[in-house]
Amino acid sequence: MDLNRRHFVALVLGAAASAPALRGAFAQADPLPSWSDGAPKKAILDFVKATTESGGAKFVPPEERIACFDQDGTLWVEQPIYTQLVYCFDRVPDVVKAKPRLAGEQPFKTVLSGDRAAMARLPMNDLVKIVAATLTGMDVEVFREDVAKWIAEAHDPRWKRPYTDLIYLPQLELMRFLRANGYKTYIVTGGGQDFVRAYAERVYGVPPEQVVGTAGRVRYQYDAAGKPVLMKEPTLLLNDDKAGKPEGIHLVIGRRPRFAFGNSSGDREMCEYTTVGGGARMAMLLLHDDGDREYAYGPARGLPNSRVGTFPQALDDEAQKKGWSVVSMKKDWNRVFAWAN
Amino acid sequence: MDLNRRHFVALVLGAAASAPALRGAFAQADPLPSWSDGAPKKAILDFVKATTESGGAKFVPPEERIACFDQDGTLWVEQPIYTQLVYCFDRVPDVVKAKPRLAGEQPFKTVLSGDRAAMARLPMNDLVKIVAATLTGMDVEVFREDVAKWIAEAHDPRWKRPYTDLIYLPQLELMRFLRANGYKTYIVTGGGQDFVRAYAERVYGVPPEQVVGTAGRVRYQYDAAGKPVLMKEPTLLLNDDKAGKPEGIHLVIGRRPRFAFGNSSGDREMCEYTTVGGGARMAMLLLHDDGDREYAYGPARGLPNSRVGTFPQALDDEAQKKGWSVVSMKKDWNRVFAWAN
Repeated sequence: MDLNRRHFVALVLGAAASAPALRGAFAQADPLPSWSDGAPKKAILDFVKATTESGGAKFVPPEERIACFDQDGTLWVEQPIYTQLVYCFDRVPDVVKAKPRLAGEQPFKTVLSGDRAAMARLPMNDLVKIVAATLTGMDVEVFREDVAKWIAEAHDPRWKRPYTDLIYLPQLELMRFLRANGYKTYIVTGGGQDFVRAYAERVYGVPPEQVVGTAGRVRYQYDAAGKPVLMKEPTLLLNDDKAGKPEGIHLVIGRRPRFAFGNSSGDREMCEYTTVGGGARMAMLLLHDDGDREYAYGPARGLPNSRVGTFPQALDDEAQKKGWSVVSMKKDWNRVFAWAN
Repeated sequence: MDLNRRHFVALVLGAAASAPALRGAFAQADPLPSWSDGAPKKAILDFVKATTESGGAKFVPPEERIACFDQDGTLWVEQPIYTQLVYCFDRVPDVVKAKPRLAGEQPFKTVLSGDRAAMARLPMNDLVKIVAATLTGMDVEVFREDVAKWIAEAHDPRWKRPYTDLIYLPQLELMRFLRANGYKTYIVTGGGQDFVRAYAERVYGVPPEQVVGTAGRVRYQYDAAGKPVLMKEPTLLLNDDKAGKPEGIHLVIGRRPRFAFGNSSGDREMCEYTTVGGGARMAMLLLHDDGDREYAYGPARGLPNSRVGTFPQALDDEAQKKGWSVVSMKKDWNRVFAWAN
């Protein structure tokens, strides 16, 4: 099948899902097979039905169907450290090769030692140094290629699988279901915008222009051969976390989402911003309460505390009060990863 | 026709234009009737054909079909001053009402005098003061509603028509033609991102998420009633002009465009960035050489100099050298506005 035809078919199928005549056929097949029956699954199905039902009180015009997903801990595993930090650590040897004096300096010395436990304990100001040294100073295209190469090769130590295998199957189903109903799915991540864009289209079906993330300034300049390049600079432009999420959504998307999905206190403001708009709106939070299949951390509901992806009891309480759906990984997902039962 | 069905039809037609079986039908009707036969029109038709012809050497996958248009002087009239500045001037009385001490201060005094010639001569640092006073300090939603209201009512003094009537018909045809062939049309403007987003969907068919413009920081905060709002702050985040255009394109879109259309030295870098990528790429520049139907300014090709939208001879020379298409309004457009012959 050629690309034009594939595009044509995809558009027709995408639209067909919201065309009344064909909706019956879709309703028969479960669009969310990895989601167990329960309140969150029902809430999703009800929301999508209500917002796409022409003439209904909660109908949302197609152009306003914006759905935003956090990435780390919402679309894929974030424990024990963010995947992007692993990338940064893995890049340190190359950075030191270019600037040998760094070999004897902290925090580079710790990273070069390979002591993962020590690396996981590095304080924030050390992490910032590593991030600045490994994520800036190069052409955006060189960076993108390097990330794409790394993510195709690097393996998570617990499951011995590529990091992109650690994407949650129920979320891929949900994103596909939303898109089939005319929603534009965005990733709104505290992670680096350029980092996530390097693989989001391939692994999530989310194109670069639908990734909002923490972004540094880029500068348009000319290389030695006179070719214009966009250089990544160590100046922070958007810190896409907490209040920075609605700010980033406004900057890149320019409309208030109808649907938001997060998993930690970093997503609180995105959920709030989404749901205080008029008309039909929905927010969901994933609770990691499944240490067997993934990880268990909170500290909400007595789960262990965690340095990464904190879900405090106050957020759980706020969600109950405001009608945000809290998804229990253990109870609401009958599968977590595509490769595991 | 209900919204769902309209969306369905639009998607099918949009895709159909690039489906080989139906292209014949499209080719019979001229998609660019306001464009006169000549090199620029031929270049557009050839480019779109080549980039959408499945299996062709210059085929561009649908997801990479990004077309970027400057706004002022490219999509609508920019003379004698940018429309957004007229909005700022019109807002000054309200600003002074809220802060009466400004009434006796410059440049507010000049604006309040209503002397348009003096307003047009205000130096850049005075304009910055007016811009900061009128475009920041309010909730983004209040701002959007105010712009939408203003642009529905304000009239251009020369033609006594709403500013949105000063959009060039040939460009609306071109954007529609590109979209019908799977291109996503973006506006990449030196004007304010929030300003242009307030009307771009209605008048250009370009949704907010496809408007890249000069942007200030917004801050997520709570109003007196405890409602979260995004406040516009006077801190510049992106100056979307000259080198800032490729930088803004990277920030918001994250891919290099295939097609760029500008009209001044502010668009040089966008055209350059677009065309130095691999594969099929195209850049166009509009030359305002039609004082009867619109305005004549350059100073390229001996046209009068202008404070707004400078098109220097060096840009004309660069365009010739690099194969960027220079469009003569006088020669290449048989119509300029939808309401004029």
